[in-house]
Amino acid sequence: MQNTSEKFHVSTSAVAPLALQFQNTRSATVGLIHGLSAEDCTAQSMPDASPVKWHLAHTTWFFETFILEKFERNFVPFRADFRVLFNSYYNGVGEKHARPESGLITRPGLEEIISYRSHVDARIGALLETRSLPPKVLELITLGCHHEQQHQELILTDLKHLLSRNPALPALRNGWPLTPIAPRTQAWTNFPEGIVEVGHAGDGFCFDNELPRHRQFCAAFSIARFPVTYGEFADFIADGGYQRPELWLSAGWDAVQREGWTHPLYWRRESPSAAWRTFTLRGEIDIARDVPVAHVSYFEAEAYARWAAARLPTVAEWETAATCAPRIGHFAENGILHPLATDAFNAPENVPQHMFGDVWEWTQSAYLPYPGFRSAEGAVGEYNGKFMVNQMVLKGGSCATPQSHIRASYRNFFPTDARWQFSGLRLARDAT
Amino acid sequence: MQNTSEKFHVSTSAVAPLALQFQNTRSATVGLIHGLSAEDCTAQSMPDASPVKWHLAHTTWFFETFILEKFERNFVPFRADFRVLFNSYYNGVGEKHARPESGLITRPGLEEIISYRSHVDARIGALLETRSLPPKVLELITLGCHHEQQHQELILTDLKHLLSRNPALPALRNGWPLTPIAPRTQAWTNFPEGIVEVGHAGDGFCFDNELPRHRQFCAAFSIARFPVTYGEFADFIADGGYQRPELWLSAGWDAVQREGWTHPLYWRRESPSAAWRTFTLRGEIDIARDVPVAHVSYFEAEAYARWAAARLPTVAEWETAATCAPRIGHFAENGILHPLATDAFNAPENVPQHMFGDVWEWTQSAYLPYPGFRSAEGAVGEYNGKFMVNQMVLKGGSCATPQSHIRASYRNFFPTDARWQFSGLRLARDAT
Amino acid sequence: MQNTSEKFHVSTSAVAPLALQFQNTRSATVGLIHGLSAEDCTAQSMPDASPVKWHLAHTTWFFETFILEKFERNFVPFRADFRVLFNSYYNGVGEKHARPESGLITRPGLEEIISYRSHVDARIGALLETRSLPPKVLELITLGCHHEQQHQELILTDLKHLLSRNPALPALRNGWPLTPIAPRTQAWTNFPEGIVEVGHAGDGFCFDNELPRHRQFCAAFSIARFPVTYGEFADFIADGGYQRPELWLSAGWDAVQREGWTHPLYWRRESPSAAWRTFTLRGEIDIARDVPVAHVSYFEAEAYARWAAARLPTVAEWETAATCAPRIGHFAENGILHPLATDAFNAPENVPQHMFGDVWEWTQSAYLPYPGFRSAEGAVGEYNGKFMVNQMVLKGGSCATPQSHIRASYRNFFPTDARWQFSGLRLARDAT
Amino acid sequence: MQNTSEKFHVSTSAVAPLALQFQNTRSATVGLIHGLSAEDCTAQSMPDASPVKWHLAHTTWFFETFILEKFERNFVPFRADFRVLFNSYYNGVGEKHARPESGLITRPGLEEIISYRSHVDARIGALLETRSLPPKVLELITLGCHHEQQHQELILTDLKHLLSRNPALPALRNGWPLTPIAPRTQAWTNFPEGIVEVGHAGDGFCFDNELPRHRQFCAAFSIARFPVTYGEFADFIADGGYQRPELWLSAGWDAVQREGWTHPLYWRRESPSAAWRTFTLRGEIDIARDVPVAHVSYFEAEAYARWAAARLPTVAEWETAATCAPRIGHFAENGILHPLATDAFNAPENVPQHMFGDVWEWTQSAYLPYPGFRSAEGAVGEYNGKFMVNQMVLKGGSCATPQSHIRASYRNFFPTDARWQFSGLRLARDAT
Repeated sequence: MQNTSEKFHVSTSAVAPLALQFQNTRSATVGLIHGLSAEDCTAQSMPDASPVKWHLAHTTWFFETFILEKFERNFVPFRADFRVLFNSYYNGVGEKHARPESGLITRPGLEEIISYRSHVDARIGALLETRSLPPKVLELITLGCHHEQQHQELILTDLKHLLSRNPALPALRNGWPLTPIAPRTQAWTNFPEGIVEVGHAGDGFCFDNELPRHRQFCAAFSIARFPVTYGEFADFIADGGYQRPELWLSAGWDAVQREGWTHPLYWRRESPSAAWRTFTLRGEIDIARDVPVAHVSYFEAEAYARWAAARLPTVAEWETAATCAPRIGHFAENGILHPLATDAFNAPENVPQHMFGDVWEWTQSAYLPYPGFRSAEGAVGEYNGKFMVNQMVLKGGSCATPQSHIRASYRNFFPTDARWQFSGLRLARDAT
Repeated sequence: MQNTSEKFHVSTSAVAPLALQFQNTRSATVGLIHGLSAEDCTAQSMPDASPVKWHLAHTTWFFETFILEKFERNFVPFRADFRVLFNSYYNGVGEKHARPESGLITRPGLEEIISYRSHVDARIGALLETRSLPPKVLELITLGCHHEQQHQELILTDLKHLLSRNPALPALRNGWPLTPIAPRTQAWTNFPEGIVEVGHAGDGFCFDNELPRHRQFCAAFSIARFPVTYGEFADFIADGGYQRPELWLSAGWDAVQREGWTHPLYWRRESPSAAWRTFTLRGEIDIARDVPVAHVSYFEAEAYARWAAARLPTVAEWETAATCAPRIGHFAENGILHPLATDAFNAPENVPQHMFGDVWEWTQSAYLPYPGFRSAEGAVGEYNGKFMVNQMVLKGGSCATPQSHIRASYRNFFPTDARWQFSGLRLARDAT
Repeated sequence: MQNTSEKFHVSTSAVAPLALQFQNTRSATVGLIHGLSAEDCTAQSMPDASPVKWHLAHTTWFFETFILEKFERNFVPFRADFRVLFNSYYNGVGEKHARPESGLITRPGLEEIISYRSHVDARIGALLETRSLPPKVLELITLGCHHEQQHQELILTDLKHLLSRNPALPALRNGWPLTPIAPRTQAWTNFPEGIVEVGHAGDGFCFDNELPRHRQFCAAFSIARFPVTYGEFADFIADGGYQRPELWLSAGWDAVQREGWTHPLYWRRESPSAAWRTFTLRGEIDIARDVPVAHVSYFEAEAYARWAAARLPTVAEWETAATCAPRIGHFAENGILHPLATDAFNAPENVPQHMFGDVWEWTQSAYLPYPGFRSAEGAVGEYNGKFMVNQMVLKGGSCATPQSHIRASYRNFFPTDARWQFSGLRLARDAT
Repeated sequence: MQNTSEKFHVSTSAVAPLALQFQNTRSATVGLIHGLSAEDCTAQSMPDASPVKWHLAHTTWFFETFILEKFERNFVPFRADFRVLFNSYYNGVGEKHARPESGLITRPGLEEIISYRSHVDARIGALLETRSLPPKVLELITLGCHHEQQHQELILTDLKHLLSRNPALPALRNGWPLTPIAPRTQAWTNFPEGIVEVGHAGDGFCFDNELPRHRQFCAAFSIARFPVTYGEFADFIADGGYQRPELWLSAGWDAVQREGWTHPLYWRRESPSAAWRTFTLRGEIDIARDVPVAHVSYFEAEAYARWAAARLPTVAEWETAATCAPRIGHFAENGILHPLATDAFNAPENVPQHMFGDVWEWTQSAYLPYPGFRSAEGAVGEYNGKFMVNQMVLKGGSCATPQSHIRASYRNFFPTDARWQFSGLRLARDAT
């Protein structure tokens, strides 16, 4: 039986770097809300999204509940009712407040949540100065930092969705650091058949759903050099993509009809002859043809691939291709908040590019346990395993993902109709 | 054809008192939000309720759209997009923002809405200093003040609903000005048959739905001296009231089953043997047996009456009884925010009491146009008439109604399953 | 306290005529299903409608449960499980099978239901030959006959709805007995103000909801000589009737949007320039301009009236007008199954016509208890009273109503969005 | 590019055997409805199920549309409107009638559908006597036979669901051919790691979703000798299985709460202390502990496996195990209509048993295209591919599956909450 430290692969040797990592992660979260009002941080735009304030509190709750409550001497909670209020989905911790009602929690206010953060930060800081901490504490704090990074990304995507529902289409940030992107010609990289290894390798941190590393047989395949772009997706629309059932999975076509989809999320145009515009965290802009497309569901990605006489890659293919790909892309730290995908400097010509950052890439692999998978013991065991059904895997991170958070083995996952993440796609083909 | 001034019965002689009325009404609204955070003012707890911020803005929009836009020279809107954003239901004004999404409007923030109010207040003030204003302006400003008073009540009831959804059950106001209420014996007042007049009489302001005053034939009836109390309603519950279909209208029984009702809104008890408690704007308290019961739907009021071998009064009966009733009760101005119903000082013994204030009283009359009813011309004509179907009339005002707002002829109206208003009941019987 | 015989006004003197009435009523029901397959009789097209087989069984259940079970010696039920299976809504009788699942009852089959009918008919026949029957038995059999007539109408309207959902639009009857209708000029009949009597008078049978007869004050009014026709309603559509919110009640406009209404139920045209056609129980036909329009909801009737600068009549007005109207029209016995409205032979010129038969006429009166109303004791007391909320009254009967079933005091009632009955309208106005 | 004959692996050499297969298949379908009334064949109990009549017609439509329409000289449809009415989901064929409304099609009646079948049977028979038929015709007729077998199973499962909604719980067949089953001890069979081949091999017919056969790497595993039984599942229930969220996938727990599941479909007991009973096509019976459990969803199967400290097998594991398993079990041809699972006669001791027939076995594999999968050209290409998302694979066939229909490579698939098929489970474990 594995223990947690095997599950979440943490090096437990160095406490000082962990204290720094903790501090940096916590500060980065607060940095994201610069310029937001308490009102911006309180509203919830749909059941799948959460208020910013909730993210700020829940990530703090994670440290308080899984670490302080268990390892701090004479633990007293900051506020007893937060235990229920900011539990996301851990049945093992007890009752939860209903997620779709998160937007009704006007009290505690933003200021109190910020105090809550400071309070818990200080106590975790103090705990980290304790001698001979059990390794499990370090593992859990490390897990908490990676957990917080996931919520950093959600803060941005949930906020984008919220602001998009305001008729004034307000921006989170003004000013635009983008430069024009040069068009480039699509090309393909070939990989031979063979047994490949999938999942996390090495000593660094990973989530339980990246383990165990295991062998898969992989037939020969080709993968596209570049992700699909806004311009290419506009061509799909112009070619009747949203009107042709033969391009869609049956459930995808149902979604098109039920939801009235005629374009990816956040697209709009004044009239059928006008140019497409898209809402971004910097306000609404004209689409730029050569930028990787974002905010498509699995259904749309899959239909696009069929239209393009290709398919989506599997996770095994994606990870195989990623071994030779440059780790260059735009991440949350760049603060651009929209895919960019300028060419990697000095990237070898015949390898896939932009696999990391900018947009998540939908794969054709269902989110299921890897062979030999076991959840961690206790409530943190609910972290990933219980979601392994009816979702598809996405790879590579996006412009809203912290760079230090992403790995080739990282498995993100969403239902097939989710569109509010920065989700795009890259094509693959069977070898010819 | 009637003109507006006939519809909304306004005396147009005195501009100065109107300026004062305007100023007082506007200040009273802002007074209600004392102690609320911007977050409290932004959230929306259900589609039927609106954010406080929206009420603050919409009442201002009313003055800007119906008065300044038409009568101010060189009118420039405070912000052009507010015209759509804060339109409630006036199709005649054009597009509207979707009401169920009001809680997503985090921008403009509360501060900007307060500025919007000041801005419009100043301009209406200036307009009122203009010489020889057309009478219609005065009528519309008067209408706007009464409209604003309606939203003052909704601010309190919507806020009560919002706070009740917070697991911490926070209070709007702390401290409690209540004194114990003495029990009193129910009694009945009899009225003979005859032709009675229903609707507004005299020169004072009234809404179009109170007109025209008209004759009805009314059979002999008795009406209860006091409203039904919390204690009496608890007896109904204890007697299986919510488990006996024979006590309910068919649609009422459907609502009981569908919604899982076992008590009025805001009631709760720890266990079946514990005492009932109820949420109020001053926090959760034990129910007081002798206080008029609030937050029952028409269905619950009607079932209670059947259980008590009585019925609800009609509007004609209620108005007839009100002619001899003392106008004493607790209103918004008292700041108690919960029904109280102490005995009227020196009230004659054989007349109905507490008909005004404390709780609205459901009647057995459907909300339909009075004979000869005509809506006002233009968009303000949408004020009342278009809601005259599938709702029942309530009379008398509540502890959240401004005292200057209520009249015997006032017709409030809600769907038969609405419970978030301070709605109670008084029994009636056919004469024996 | 009234007893049932007062409630349902039955003359208990003559047993022999009742036996004949019973036999005729029961035969007429079976006559309606001539030409239908067992499949036609089993399907249920929507929750508001019932399978024909269910109507056949439920009307029989009524006699078995309310009469045989109580008054037959050594009563043994035909089949014990029918007691639950064919209970419509009588909570006082115990459990009920879920109405929306009636279409899943493939067993018992139609043949067994026909046997059930014969069986109960014979036993009621035998009971009626018993000496000195208690008057209550005769009252209940009379009530059962009138109850059965209501279901005769529902058999036709539910069947029409079912057949309309079949893409082949099959007819219940082929061949068409209609002759062209001459156009006629609308005109108005005036009535002075005064106290009028409303409700059932005399010794004949009536339902409890027509009692007690009572006085109302009625202002002077005019009522249209003829019902609104298909042609007039087509003019309303052509004038943008379904696109103009100002013509509709707010809840009506919601229904238009939610349901996508652009015309009454059963209308269709190939293209916006094509002629309107309508589905009937004799198949689809072109609309005939001068025939009274059917299958409009209250919302549509009310909007039409506003468009026509008129309003719907109240029940008091309708009954007052009906006292001088000829009782001539087309009923179920005529077997035409569609409104016809040829002119009454020798009808006086200045009186309203076609008030009876052809189409039910929506009134502006809510379905509420009359002053002094009391339900019958026991389960039959659930007959009408518990539906008295959120519905509007219709008067006069239709081409699917048995002629012997209708009276001036008859109150039919449906929710404001119901359209599958033969429901039309007649205009009224305040006296000028 | 593959052509259809490669896709659906049909041997095109022998026409005479095909004529016989066609005739047998068609007769078997009609044999299933023996004893059913026209009413039984018309009703539809839920959107996922279809009326028996629809199955009878749709399978015929398949032959008429895909074969006669294309290959018969002077083709005239039996009835032109059937083309739309009995199209299931082939967008390539044009319009479809709404599936959830299939139960409203009372006309054509059962008799006409039987005529339709005879008519098309005769014409296909005649076509098969034509000289030098193109191979594609034979392939499509073969496909049509296998398609019809799938609907034979659905006729039984849809009918079971329909009859279960009748409070009388009527049986399709009376009398019971079951004999008591002896209990047996669970045991495990081990398989070593290695590259295995998955998918259809050989010349026989298969569906496109079983192709191409391909290699997968499979880690060492153990698989249970016997499927999970009713008794074992009752133990899971008794141990609080439906009350413990930690045993469930998150979406599974949501389903438990939303649907109120406390046991598999068709189970019932009078009281918590009473014995479990289950509805079958032969009426309701006591559960027999040693019979393989049926009518569990993927969610329930997966939760059971977690409770039993095991997991579900993958498709690769199942097919690997099946290579050594005896092909013995109960199928539709046995007419038992309920799982039985007597021991295989002379089965080797250490191999998995009952892998074929009795109950479908849920796997842990998502239903996705195999590497290199391509759909057939044209409308038949919609057969399988477009459903490859958000479903899980089941293997082995059930007591309602024709024996000639099942293969080790056969992939059945259903959403994770589907329960109306004869779906059970077999446990697997990682090798220790």
